[in-house]
Amino acid sequence: MQPRNADWEAYVRSSFAQQGLMRHLGAQIDELAPGRCVLSCDFRPELSQQHGFFHAGVTSALADSAGGYAGFTLFPPESEVLTVEFKINLFAPARGRRIIATANVVKSGRTLTVCDIDVDVIDDAGFRTPHARMLQTLMRVTVAV
Amino acid sequence: MQPRNADWEAYVRSSFAQQGLMRHLGAQIDELAPGRCVLSCDFRPELSQQHGFFHAGVTSALADSAGGYAGFTLFPPESEVLTVEFKINLFAPARGRRIIATANVVKSGRTLTVCDIDVDVIDDAGFRTPHARMLQTLMRVTVAV
Amino acid sequence: MQPRNADWEAYVRSSFAQQGLMRHLGAQIDELAPGRCVLSCDFRPELSQQHGFFHAGVTSALADSAGGYAGFTLFPPESEVLTVEFKINLFAPARGRRIIATANVVKSGRTLTVCDIDVDVIDDAGFRTPHARMLQTLMRVTVAV
Amino acid sequence: MQPRNADWEAYVRSSFAQQGLMRHLGAQIDELAPGRCVLSCDFRPELSQQHGFFHAGVTSALADSAGGYAGFTLFPPESEVLTVEFKINLFAPARGRRIIATANVVKSGRTLTVCDIDVDVIDDAGFRTPHARMLQTLMRVTVAV
Repeated sequence: MQPRNADWEAYVRSSFAQQGLMRHLGAQIDELAPGRCVLSCDFRPELSQQHGFFHAGVTSALADSAGGYAGFTLFPPESEVLTVEFKINLFAPARGRRIIATANVVKSGRTLTVCDIDVDVIDDAGFRTPHARMLQTLMRVTVAV
Repeated sequence: MQPRNADWEAYVRSSFAQQGLMRHLGAQIDELAPGRCVLSCDFRPELSQQHGFFHAGVTSALADSAGGYAGFTLFPPESEVLTVEFKINLFAPARGRRIIATANVVKSGRTLTVCDIDVDVIDDAGFRTPHARMLQTLMRVTVAV
Repeated sequence: MQPRNADWEAYVRSSFAQQGLMRHLGAQIDELAPGRCVLSCDFRPELSQQHGFFHAGVTSALADSAGGYAGFTLFPPESEVLTVEFKINLFAPARGRRIIATANVVKSGRTLTVCDIDVDVIDDAGFRTPHARMLQTLMRVTVAV
Repeated sequence: MQPRNADWEAYVRSSFAQQGLMRHLGAQIDELAPGRCVLSCDFRPELSQQHGFFHAGVTSALADSAGGYAGFTLFPPESEVLTVEFKINLFAPARGRRIIATANVVKSGRTLTVCDIDVDVIDDAGFRTPHARMLQTLMRVTVAV
């Protein structure tokens, strides 16, 4: 996994900071490396489904952003990333205090990138359990500067 | 599409009102019928990705809830709904002032339900365009009262 | 849905005739139109899973080809079609004498195309029932002549 | 990954032998373990798409069966396995002499099981490359004996 943009980390952090939704959900970057991005998010009642657990929409939003930035780390400068599609399996409702989405690039192509994202939940006792898995397709778009 | 719970509409509205995330995103119920649910959400900077359009995570959260409630309308009393998995294709970034997720049950089984959800975006001139399509699997879970 | 290749139908039929797998499964073209393709396949023991019904692999192969050709009908000359990914929900095992995959283009982009494919099964009494639904992403690739 | 059926291996081999499609495609079992199944298939013109590579339908049929049997290894006696849905990303056309689908159970639940399946291709020089990845949901069904 070789970055093609020397400033990849600054690009990712700056883009993440511009995502209103990530701030609105309270998400943060835990780890960044070429082809890899880990995001996490603490539970708040604003993120709940009807039983007070994390809403699947929070899980998928966090996983989608983690995958997007994992892919973005490998893009050349003057690129943008679009989510073409993703599929997510939710193993069980996420009952806990924190979810963590770990994204890895599986296939990095010229136009399309495929990522694998695992989401774990940390329960109130501090135990970490697999919560969801996403398989995502990204598209690289060239942007004029 | 025959409801098996005479109070299906009250059940759906009460469950929706308990989803902290739907309130946090500013989502509302536009239409409910047996096997069908339409939700919508107005744009705010809190819902954006890095270019100021709707974040794919908002699209998928709204579509997931719309599908979940479309399925829920057909469940017998003392049931709950879980999202098993979904897959969403995003046709283009949602640039506009409102997104609308229209969910219909495609297959209603004893344990599993499959929904189709179309998400449209209303742009600033008021034009409505297809934005995304989701195919979702739900599971019915019996709950003790 | 406007074809950009005057010879689209000949291109599709010639490409289909070259798919060894479609012949091996006994598939045929039932209908072709711009943005639309219907393929079908009769049951034979060679297409079965362990209980003597159609194997899910036959359903998905037929649906994948139907979607690919629905997309292909709209491509300009000197293009080829690749399946980027697909997701399929199987509503129930296909017990019957024939399956029919009906593919329609949902979104036709410059590089990517999204198709919706419904697969029905005809049972031994001649009744037609929904069997599966696929959501598929295709990529157009330019080929030198 | 603990099997709940002492005869799991005999059950899997007997079920596989009854799948007409696996025989028709020329697939074989390369490896079986609790929660794991590896299937492979040699190239023949009967398995091709229009350019003479493996058809995506072969890849998905092989991966679907591999996942189904990986799940089946963990089922109690008097169970059957159904594919609820799957999603597959194809990284590139499979040009080569053999494809190998390696399935692992990711989540084993009472009713639903989730599998991850990687498909590699062996090219004519003997090099092995990732070709596709599938994320699959299975359902356990109890059968009377």
